[in-house]
Amino acid sequence: MPAAAVDSINLRDKLALFDETWQPKVIAALNDYQLKLVKLQGEFVWHSHADTDELFICLDGQFDIEFRDHTVTVRAGEICVVPRGVEHKPVAAAECHVMIIEPTGVTNTGDAQSGLTAPNDQWI
Amino acid sequence: MPAAAVDSINLRDKLALFDETWQPKVIAALNDYQLKLVKLQGEFVWHSHADTDELFICLDGQFDIEFRDHTVTVRAGEICVVPRGVEHKPVAAAECHVMIIEPTGVTNTGDAQSGLTAPNDQWI
Repeated sequence: MPAAAVDSINLRDKLALFDETWQPKVIAALNDYQLKLVKLQGEFVWHSHADTDELFICLDGQFDIEFRDHTVTVRAGEICVVPRGVEHKPVAAAECHVMIIEPTGVTNTGDAQSGLTAPNDQWI
Repeated sequence: MPAAAVDSINLRDKLALFDETWQPKVIAALNDYQLKLVKLQGEFVWHSHADTDELFICLDGQFDIEFRDHTVTVRAGEICVVPRGVEHKPVAAAECHVMIIEPTGVTNTGDAQSGLTAPNDQWI
């Protein structure tokens, strides 16, 4: 089987490779989109992404996505699509594992300047 | 909370809404992509998608994606990205539940004419 042959990717195996929170790790590309795994714990920052929707898939645990007018809880086995331009703030009371899918190059903190801004293209 | 407010979507609740196999049901849009749930059982047809990669996320059970030179097994908690233009044939020995993410308008059988060709945009 050549090195570049298509293969499956196990999400738990990939999650075991890092401990940091709020640092998305890229595991695959889908056209000009990327699949990123991230561990959440605590409060993120209010931000929005002017040019793109953002998909959250909760894999383990649960977290909240706060919006200015309501809060959505996303549990394991649930998804949430945050529409472009909508301010949101993820909050996880306990560690939670999430897969994010969005176009390549999207920064985690969007329009917000923050110490939580993570580098892009951190493949694992 | 207005009717259009962002909310989470529970994948198992959506999967409980239909029984048919090989009939993708759209549950959400992500920019110009769609998230589709599909139940697999038996053999699909050999096909490819010339213009797009295709993401499979296995939610329950397991299935194989046959390629011309090897076979990839995708189990619950695993993903597989089939690159554009690559011939593949999904096969599920037992019923398996999958989320597919790909651009809006992609037909399940790609370039192949088949009785398994499903209509697009079947939202649930």
